[in-house]
Amino acid sequence: MNKKQLFEQIRVKKSFLCVGLDPVLENLPEHLLDLEDPVFEFNKQLIDATQDLCVAYKPNTAFYESRGLKGWKSLEQTWAYIPKDIFTIADAKRGDIGNTSAMYADAFFKEEQSGLGFDAVTVAPYMGKDSVSPFLNYADKWVILLALTSNAGHSDFQLTESENGKLYEEVIRSSSGWADSEQLMYVVGATRGSEFANIRRLAPDHFLLVPGVGAQGGSLKDVCEFGLNDHCGLLVNSSRGIIYAGKGTDFAEKARAEALKLQQEMESILTEAGLL
Amino acid sequence: MNKKQLFEQIRVKKSFLCVGLDPVLENLPEHLLDLEDPVFEFNKQLIDATQDLCVAYKPNTAFYESRGLKGWKSLEQTWAYIPKDIFTIADAKRGDIGNTSAMYADAFFKEEQSGLGFDAVTVAPYMGKDSVSPFLNYADKWVILLALTSNAGHSDFQLTESENGKLYEEVIRSSSGWADSEQLMYVVGATRGSEFANIRRLAPDHFLLVPGVGAQGGSLKDVCEFGLNDHCGLLVNSSRGIIYAGKGTDFAEKARAEALKLQQEMESILTEAGLL
Repeated sequence: MNKKQLFEQIRVKKSFLCVGLDPVLENLPEHLLDLEDPVFEFNKQLIDATQDLCVAYKPNTAFYESRGLKGWKSLEQTWAYIPKDIFTIADAKRGDIGNTSAMYADAFFKEEQSGLGFDAVTVAPYMGKDSVSPFLNYADKWVILLALTSNAGHSDFQLTESENGKLYEEVIRSSSGWADSEQLMYVVGATRGSEFANIRRLAPDHFLLVPGVGAQGGSLKDVCEFGLNDHCGLLVNSSRGIIYAGKGTDFAEKARAEALKLQQEMESILTEAGLL
Repeated sequence: MNKKQLFEQIRVKKSFLCVGLDPVLENLPEHLLDLEDPVFEFNKQLIDATQDLCVAYKPNTAFYESRGLKGWKSLEQTWAYIPKDIFTIADAKRGDIGNTSAMYADAFFKEEQSGLGFDAVTVAPYMGKDSVSPFLNYADKWVILLALTSNAGHSDFQLTESENGKLYEEVIRSSSGWADSEQLMYVVGATRGSEFANIRRLAPDHFLLVPGVGAQGGSLKDVCEFGLNDHCGLLVNSSRGIIYAGKGTDFAEKARAEALKLQQEMESILTEAGLL
């Protein structure tokens, strides 16, 4: 999916919501546990219940890999079940030397080989340009590079000051020379609302993937005040707040209700900004 | 495997060789391609041929994930086939927020859940302490943190200077407060021979995993001159130089011959250093 198509989906759905599909077996509704693949069934019902309210789904690969082969199978089935007009993000935080990153690109983008054809993958910047470039060889596929994350450890290295500013600023500045905003997005944690103005200055045209709204404590309003641009430019993720809204047989309805709240909030933000 | 046991294996084998099991389907000997799982068969024969010459095997997960479910199955079978007295490294370069890194730790360490029980996993430092800590909750399991890598992109961020020195120095200095040398190693590229003295100053007791000898251009002698400590402290990886030494039905014999050359070179280095 390209940038124009993504913005078009945002206008159609009146939403820039990304739903994080991060299922933990122990937290699933009990009535699913006897099924052959409870994780896929959980995701399937969540997708059925929320697909008109969100523009993206983001499975975090760790939640699948932790169950080994069975988990990888659930991931494959989940990806295949997502309607093709919805943007799909493999939240995999990969990154390796060039020829190895090319393998990761195959893993997440090359459906005929790996069974997965995500639109985007999250990538860690530590190993530099050649760890990122191989992902860009796929047309209309995206790298979402870690810039400023929302976890406690973000301050260990991302805020380190050099003559190029903070490390996350240097990551944005350097990487914006490797690809343009048609193939590159950044991960920016929602708990850092006040840094958004700064990030928008460095990356005015890029989409930003914002985890951390909800369970991780960020505010949607703060994020939008600083992060919105003329093509929205934001994908705001919520995972636990939506997928665990209910624990009973009505878990999907409850998930829909939470997604709807966020979609409605987003609709009024988009309307106010004149983007609809 | 703990540090003492690892050094014991090094003394028994007279080797600190790590063999990188990074098979690409197109590069495998032709006679294997009709088998049900050519990748596992390739690895199996390599393990049979080299297990007395090396102390560690390091599959890079990208090479398996790129083939989807089938690849993950090859990885699982490969890990299970490696003798239990050999150190196993999942070269996965993972790292995420705390609760997600805990899932990655399960994926690579918790055999009863994921089917994989590696001794160590490589981790990217960008997200800081809480992205690393969950891996340390497993006794006798190791984090191998990216410090200074051997790829071209290493200079993009790893050498950035702040008041704490270069970023890779800051990574070593900070992280050595998160775990001691009983559970933490560092990845240090062999092509940076001259940086080894510096790294040894910062991490005198830690094992260093050194990729980049052979195909990536590093010299074993340079690495050892600066990197060796009183318990060896080095795992030197070779992948392509060994696994693709031959392309015919005798590929495993040829791989053995290459591994033997490195083992013999290592034996004389260890002898000269008084470590045997």
